[in-house]
Amino acid sequence: MNSLTNLFAEIPAEPPEELFQTLLHAPGVRIERIVSFGHASPEGFWYDQETAEWVLLLTGGARLRFEGEEPIDLRSGAFVNIPAHTRHRVEWTDPSQPTVWLAIHYDSA
Amino acid sequence: MNSLTNLFAEIPAEPPEELFQTLLHAPGVRIERIVSFGHASPEGFWYDQETAEWVLLLTGGARLRFEGEEPIDLRSGAFVNIPAHTRHRVEWTDPSQPTVWLAIHYDSA
Repeated sequence: MNSLTNLFAEIPAEPPEELFQTLLHAPGVRIERIVSFGHASPEGFWYDQETAEWVLLLTGGARLRFEGEEPIDLRSGAFVNIPAHTRHRVEWTDPSQPTVWLAIHYDSA
Repeated sequence: MNSLTNLFAEIPAEPPEELFQTLLHAPGVRIERIVSFGHASPEGFWYDQETAEWVLLLTGGARLRFEGEEPIDLRSGAFVNIPAHTRHRVEWTDPSQPTVWLAIHYDSA
């Protein structure tokens, strides 16, 4: 948890790593800000998560791929629901500006 | 639930009423888009909700008040956590443009 009060505040200029910040943690739900700067999932890496994730892209752009499917281009306002254990990866994020995501992780059982 | 895939899409021009759309409903969590157009809570009305709500303002602007406190001005990116049964009201939203909110309703018990 941290003291951030604005989703677009405190974005460092070109940090070397993606930024993950938990904004709220309650039983069964965790709200997270993610800031990417051209980052992508490592070659051959797939996320396979215990919890479901509803993710909204707010600035920048990204390309998301679910295993066995065509990639999806996401721009400002786009949201996607990712059920638990649905393998996916981020193929690309915009290298020219920060990509700000809001991720809602929730128990879907 | 509906087929919306972008938070900023399908915003009608100056609808007479606030727009509430559930984007995801899972056990213990509901994600909702709210679009206001100068709407405010009726005089003397206070929300008193069974569930907690984490709300993020994305476009437009608003003034939120918790009972017994000074109002809070919200602009793009501002977020606020509203515990269950914390009385609050929306005193003002920008009449010149749509105010788009993302609300995460969650069980906090």
